[in-house]
Amino acid sequence: MTVPHVGLLPAGPRDAISDVAGVTVGHCTLAEGPVQTGVTVIRLHPGDPFREKCLAAATVLNGFGKSLGLIQLQELGTIETPIALTNTLAVGTVFNAQVREALQGTPEMGREWPVVNPLVLECNDGYLNDIRAPSVGEEHYRRALAAASADFARGAVGAGRGMSCFELKGGIGSASRQVKVAGEGFLVGALVLANFGRLPDLIVAGRHLGPALVRRRAEGAPEAPETGSIIAVLATDAPLDRHQLRRLSLRAGAGLARTGSVFGHGSGDISLAISTAERPSYPPPPSGPLRRQLLDELLDPFFRAAADAVEQAILDALFAAESVTGRDRHRRQALLELAPDWAKLADGR
Amino acid sequence: MTVPHVGLLPAGPRDAISDVAGVTVGHCTLAEGPVQTGVTVIRLHPGDPFREKCLAAATVLNGFGKSLGLIQLQELGTIETPIALTNTLAVGTVFNAQVREALQGTPEMGREWPVVNPLVLECNDGYLNDIRAPSVGEEHYRRALAAASADFARGAVGAGRGMSCFELKGGIGSASRQVKVAGEGFLVGALVLANFGRLPDLIVAGRHLGPALVRRRAEGAPEAPETGSIIAVLATDAPLDRHQLRRLSLRAGAGLARTGSVFGHGSGDISLAISTAERPSYPPPPSGPLRRQLLDELLDPFFRAAADAVEQAILDALFAAESVTGRDRHRRQALLELAPDWAKLADGR
Amino acid sequence: MTVPHVGLLPAGPRDAISDVAGVTVGHCTLAEGPVQTGVTVIRLHPGDPFREKCLAAATVLNGFGKSLGLIQLQELGTIETPIALTNTLAVGTVFNAQVREALQGTPEMGREWPVVNPLVLECNDGYLNDIRAPSVGEEHYRRALAAASADFARGAVGAGRGMSCFELKGGIGSASRQVKVAGEGFLVGALVLANFGRLPDLIVAGRHLGPALVRRRAEGAPEAPETGSIIAVLATDAPLDRHQLRRLSLRAGAGLARTGSVFGHGSGDISLAISTAERPSYPPPPSGPLRRQLLDELLDPFFRAAADAVEQAILDALFAAESVTGRDRHRRQALLELAPDWAKLADGR
Amino acid sequence: MTVPHVGLLPAGPRDAISDVAGVTVGHCTLAEGPVQTGVTVIRLHPGDPFREKCLAAATVLNGFGKSLGLIQLQELGTIETPIALTNTLAVGTVFNAQVREALQGTPEMGREWPVVNPLVLECNDGYLNDIRAPSVGEEHYRRALAAASADFARGAVGAGRGMSCFELKGGIGSASRQVKVAGEGFLVGALVLANFGRLPDLIVAGRHLGPALVRRRAEGAPEAPETGSIIAVLATDAPLDRHQLRRLSLRAGAGLARTGSVFGHGSGDISLAISTAERPSYPPPPSGPLRRQLLDELLDPFFRAAADAVEQAILDALFAAESVTGRDRHRRQALLELAPDWAKLADGR
Repeated sequence: MTVPHVGLLPAGPRDAISDVAGVTVGHCTLAEGPVQTGVTVIRLHPGDPFREKCLAAATVLNGFGKSLGLIQLQELGTIETPIALTNTLAVGTVFNAQVREALQGTPEMGREWPVVNPLVLECNDGYLNDIRAPSVGEEHYRRALAAASADFARGAVGAGRGMSCFELKGGIGSASRQVKVAGEGFLVGALVLANFGRLPDLIVAGRHLGPALVRRRAEGAPEAPETGSIIAVLATDAPLDRHQLRRLSLRAGAGLARTGSVFGHGSGDISLAISTAERPSYPPPPSGPLRRQLLDELLDPFFRAAADAVEQAILDALFAAESVTGRDRHRRQALLELAPDWAKLADGR
Repeated sequence: MTVPHVGLLPAGPRDAISDVAGVTVGHCTLAEGPVQTGVTVIRLHPGDPFREKCLAAATVLNGFGKSLGLIQLQELGTIETPIALTNTLAVGTVFNAQVREALQGTPEMGREWPVVNPLVLECNDGYLNDIRAPSVGEEHYRRALAAASADFARGAVGAGRGMSCFELKGGIGSASRQVKVAGEGFLVGALVLANFGRLPDLIVAGRHLGPALVRRRAEGAPEAPETGSIIAVLATDAPLDRHQLRRLSLRAGAGLARTGSVFGHGSGDISLAISTAERPSYPPPPSGPLRRQLLDELLDPFFRAAADAVEQAILDALFAAESVTGRDRHRRQALLELAPDWAKLADGR
Repeated sequence: MTVPHVGLLPAGPRDAISDVAGVTVGHCTLAEGPVQTGVTVIRLHPGDPFREKCLAAATVLNGFGKSLGLIQLQELGTIETPIALTNTLAVGTVFNAQVREALQGTPEMGREWPVVNPLVLECNDGYLNDIRAPSVGEEHYRRALAAASADFARGAVGAGRGMSCFELKGGIGSASRQVKVAGEGFLVGALVLANFGRLPDLIVAGRHLGPALVRRRAEGAPEAPETGSIIAVLATDAPLDRHQLRRLSLRAGAGLARTGSVFGHGSGDISLAISTAERPSYPPPPSGPLRRQLLDELLDPFFRAAADAVEQAILDALFAAESVTGRDRHRRQALLELAPDWAKLADGR
Repeated sequence: MTVPHVGLLPAGPRDAISDVAGVTVGHCTLAEGPVQTGVTVIRLHPGDPFREKCLAAATVLNGFGKSLGLIQLQELGTIETPIALTNTLAVGTVFNAQVREALQGTPEMGREWPVVNPLVLECNDGYLNDIRAPSVGEEHYRRALAAASADFARGAVGAGRGMSCFELKGGIGSASRQVKVAGEGFLVGALVLANFGRLPDLIVAGRHLGPALVRRRAEGAPEAPETGSIIAVLATDAPLDRHQLRRLSLRAGAGLARTGSVFGHGSGDISLAISTAERPSYPPPPSGPLRRQLLDELLDPFFRAAADAVEQAILDALFAAESVTGRDRHRRQALLELAPDWAKLADGR
């Protein structure tokens, strides 16, 4: 069953964040009994991320979360490590792994040069995963990094292994959209770590399937507060500046809302937007460069692409995920296991 | 044809912002030839708004707009005038009208007391209305204020007279939702001034009708950038503090996104959230009061109600509006004129 | 008695915001009996401000104020009118004056083009001025605009006519600093409308003179809450982008703090930062320009210059102002009238 | 030589953050050869911080830093761990230590309850300390926590061991101020980790001593960009809500500016403000409590106290610190070693 295409813009060739040239993704998945967790890493280009930074910005839609590195990202508008995704309590260890790697590659760091700003984003996979056990080690970050490729798995893999979405199995999803402005083509890609939502709220490509799915589900699960989260990473090859990227990152919220989220109180809903078009180098050149910059008046198609790609990436996570059983026999069903006939379900109340 | 009910929460008796006890709305409509504009006023309670302020907060989803009074509202978290809605270029005049009224009722103002902070929110109705002509006078604000009632018209009235929404006729819409937490019932009401969106993007209650409507529309209108705006005012009788109201106001964006908006570059998308439960008095009492406050853990149903009420209020504006012809024979069709059979239209691409 | 020079950077030739090439300032002063108020206008270049916008950003240190135009300025990062300063209750009228002027010069406005975003900043001069009387008319804005010049008066003139600062006579002040980075010279200029502070807190160039001045003052004025405000406008000819300008605008707060302000609760403390180096044109060219941009690593001298220029401009306002008597025989003494021997006063408690 | 008292408000009995009842501070200091670093912990009350949270808010004056926990703190307005201060690259390890401690004391965590939000604030002590070596272990956090007391050392201790301030020896400083409003007395306390500033900028209690100190210093150190940081923690026993605490936290910037900082580009300048008056419990009671809240109109003395206490705490760090020699024979002189006669030095240029 294929994922329905949302919106009016065409997808890139992979319908994935790696349609943005240079971007690769790697996973390290831990799946054994009560341990259902992992690490996912996004590399923005093949070079040294500290010496070739990308411009970036972030929006915190709801901040019930422990993601690291956003304070500096918001001030400086740059990213200087691979982007790591993992479970909430593993962020300290992945911080350490990123520091270790950066120190090894950069003898000047902590001496004449400033120290690296690790960027570790997280969701809480504690329903399926025994999050109290410190399963994630530094080596899992390194394995995910080494595995980075333009072709990568989605669903219950990497950091997405233990995640839940609309009380179904969530995880990693990705998508992309092509944008044409002023006669020139650009790409906007999204990758999400989807771990949010209550089943009654689920909207699939504009169809409010939640109520029908609730009726079908045998167990009659009790109403639960939304305690999940989503991390949405947007990348584009268009020359947006930091001010424009901040505005772009907000539009992830529009895509998220169209799947049924209201950015719940207990949710850590965070989005990044990154441009790979300009890469400020460190140490900086003696004086400022000429930078190409997209006209503000051409932003609308990018806003549309960002919202659509995030909505599509969430659907991708739901459709790609397999059912998973974790700690204490907790189980999250795949959407396609619960509703292989989803396309024929009645929507609404 | 009735408006479809969105979401799983019940509406209040009027399905309007005036379901929140004490809230009333008045219009003054100017509709003659090229003049298609007006003023709408929301009163939060029957008392003097300067002597009995309401707690409030705001979110600027996209700030291409000229609304007045938000800087102080965001700092102090209070509202001290009626909330006025009008066209973009009339905000100076309505500011003057609010100042005049406040000075008359408050001899201490500008002497021992601080001066009032007028709150005037706007959208640009220049497609239908000759916005270059200064049609709105101070008396129109006063008439709208005098007309305030719990029962009020919606659609192409008051400030909504000249507004466009998804290239159809927009204007004033309203809705409400009932929330039950900890055994107690509360109301969340919304009023919108809807003037945003491109037709291809329109989603009606989860159904992406835009493409079908574009095909039907005779004129084959050219693709236009989104230059409109929306003002969304949320009111609740629950005791939310200013910090919680700020979080609530953001959720208007979720409802807005579900109708097809991506908060366009040229849009002034602003939402307020107001609690009528506590009314700090001026001059203040000698020491601080005991204030009841909703637990953060009970916020989720309010977030849901805010998103649903805003989505519903936008649909209300579209369904209530009549077609209007204004300056230079510009015309905006009512949704129900273009598609009385909207419920049977195919959705998606 | 000359104003002491603060900080280690040299001033520009005028020690005024007009040291930034192209920037001019004009006043219209109303001073008759209880009417002690006016309008000050800053022009950023001689061209049409709507067709040649300047990049800009703002910081609201404390938002108890009614300034207009900041919402759009913060979203788009551009200024498209002259910057107007006036008293709090005159902002509606000056908004109208700016709209009228922009409509006259731009027939496309409100038709194919968006409407202008007036930028009107204010402080409350109600202690000296009868602010309840609507003394400021649209023609006073036009006169101030017509008077704009690189050489302009300071002290109790224009919008500064009725302002108080540290319970002394405040008003308009200006200063500039030269910055040399990467072998190239730039200017940072500041203009303030200074209307804040309590006398006991006054620090003059690092010397806490407030307590000594309180003792000297005959009347033994009662302790008053801080209800004033300051508007600080920073301009530079260096190519800072909008993200950098936002960071620069915050540094006005450092200069302000060094004169004794703590950004009081009742204060509308707002700063703008503007670069005249790049001027995005409207309507925009078909595709994005190459823009020169200052390296982030070179920002520190600009931060220093911004703080120093704001501190210096506040002192300039205090030293340049003459004593003024206004409504109800209220009088504000000039600093140099109260303490011509200020340089010899003991500081501290 | 005692530290000069700044401002007009009286200090509390200890002139320390522990004047706020219940607040205690502990250090663990590592000082051996090239290892000059440590951990400092602030406890807000003797109870379990997860079950009795304090209301809090934060301001990021400049975000070049890696502090953890601020995203959730800004969203929820609560603190649920001790506040840990350490060096930049140790935050991952101290995060892990806080998680381990919270899991041990809370079996429900990561099961029915959400997981803890560690709060770890940092500055870069890499000039004196070999920050590339991972010297700080989890046990050092636990030792600092165990050592917490109302009487605590200041200067080159704990997290302050390796810090530099104005190119002199910095570190931990503390101060407090008494506030009387509406007939009732309150305390505002500050603790800083001071690691910022260039010597030429130093202002001591309003006296610009930097230039004189530069001349005296033998080595004629080259001009260096500001790459340091400051963490400022404000605590009060007054019942401020989260909105008021956010405003209070900004005023740390006023105190910081008065010592000569302009919030440099390379600086991680972060302030927290905490009220110990109300302690929301977890799990929450069935419905919301009545909360006492300070009137906004009474905030000014608290703003003043916050600015003064932060300025005083920075001076305290400078006056309390001893000279330290660290890695590669780098040495930072104590202010009182360089200028025991500081009170007689000429100020200004």
